[in-house]
Amino acid sequence: MKLQVAIDRVDIPRAEAIIDQVAGEADIIEIGTSLTKEYGLRALAPVCERLAARPAGETGRKAVLLGDIKTCDEGKYEFDLGFDCGFAYLTVMGSSSLGTMEVCAASAADHGGEMMIDLLECDESRIELISGFPDAVYCLHTSVDSGATADPVGQVRAFKARFPQITRIGIAGGIKPDQLAGLAAEGVEIAIMGSAITKAGDIAAACRACAAACHSA
Amino acid sequence: MKLQVAIDRVDIPRAEAIIDQVAGEADIIEIGTSLTKEYGLRALAPVCERLAARPAGETGRKAVLLGDIKTCDEGKYEFDLGFDCGFAYLTVMGSSSLGTMEVCAASAADHGGEMMIDLLECDESRIELISGFPDAVYCLHTSVDSGATADPVGQVRAFKARFPQITRIGIAGGIKPDQLAGLAAEGVEIAIMGSAITKAGDIAAACRACAAACHSA
Repeated sequence: MKLQVAIDRVDIPRAEAIIDQVAGEADIIEIGTSLTKEYGLRALAPVCERLAARPAGETGRKAVLLGDIKTCDEGKYEFDLGFDCGFAYLTVMGSSSLGTMEVCAASAADHGGEMMIDLLECDESRIELISGFPDAVYCLHTSVDSGATADPVGQVRAFKARFPQITRIGIAGGIKPDQLAGLAAEGVEIAIMGSAITKAGDIAAACRACAAACHSA
Repeated sequence: MKLQVAIDRVDIPRAEAIIDQVAGEADIIEIGTSLTKEYGLRALAPVCERLAARPAGETGRKAVLLGDIKTCDEGKYEFDLGFDCGFAYLTVMGSSSLGTMEVCAASAADHGGEMMIDLLECDESRIELISGFPDAVYCLHTSVDSGATADPVGQVRAFKARFPQITRIGIAGGIKPDQLAGLAAEGVEIAIMGSAITKAGDIAAACRACAAACHSA
């Protein structure tokens, strides 16, 4: 299972300081929606370049960046821009139109990038409707404004039973370190953690411990 | 009826040049999602300041800015930031959680700002669920990725009949100048026009003609 570390509600120098502490252990580093909206994708391109120029860590691992741009419309414009700025993954809302998701998927394929579909507030009929993107990662996501997921492992198990056609699964929203092994055992592809790592007293140590839990399973 | 002119897919100097041509006639100037995501809200604050410092036009009218930030989550953070940057209106997705919309509404009230709810891809049951924000403008919106609305006047009439509790209505998506009088007659509060004005050979003249149609009705 991959570990995605989400960075939110900080300025760019602070984001770069966090990246320096997690880049050798995390698989994906998320530049959160707050940063993309506050500073914009163009100002974040140098952050992508700086990470790309960095050597791999002791683990041989080198993180890539996800831009949590939450595309709702104008999919080609936003995805082309995000990939051109250096992001490896970009997000589109599961609540956007199928047409938007289709142009995002095409942009991802053109750029050798990855599309993550954010399932925030999507009900079962919506998920059924949008479940036909086999190359996309579908991200189970509990809104920050609604509080954390109580039982992410059970949530994933129920999701897999209901939507067996969806094979690439991510999950975000208050995930705790002791839930990582259970998520990995369910075949989750990407576990997304935010403040549990980025607000830790020792960010590098917190990231290392979570990465170990993700990678050992 | 108010005229909102939407500026998209241009850089900031070009946006400012367009603002100069429409600020004396339009009621609201929209800084489109493409600009907010490409350059970020902080880089757009000087655009807000520059417009605020501008004298009213010959008409006595002075436009205010809408930031089409399409908030999906973290409503308080995004709305507080947007209003602090100088925007008078901000947008939240109708597909976001009720919790998100509630904190956005509270932020708008705190800042003396306006909340516009973007109804992109919202079905009837969703609109029913989120129809309890009497201070918000509800924006009927056909996705750019799905093409223009064929019959916006008929769409508004059907919407009013189905949701009589919603009194503040905006509409966006390929609106044509000859549809403005009909929209105004239906009691639409805000008609949103983009490329019909911003891509016109004479932007000021196109805006003046549309504003006249909006304001005479």
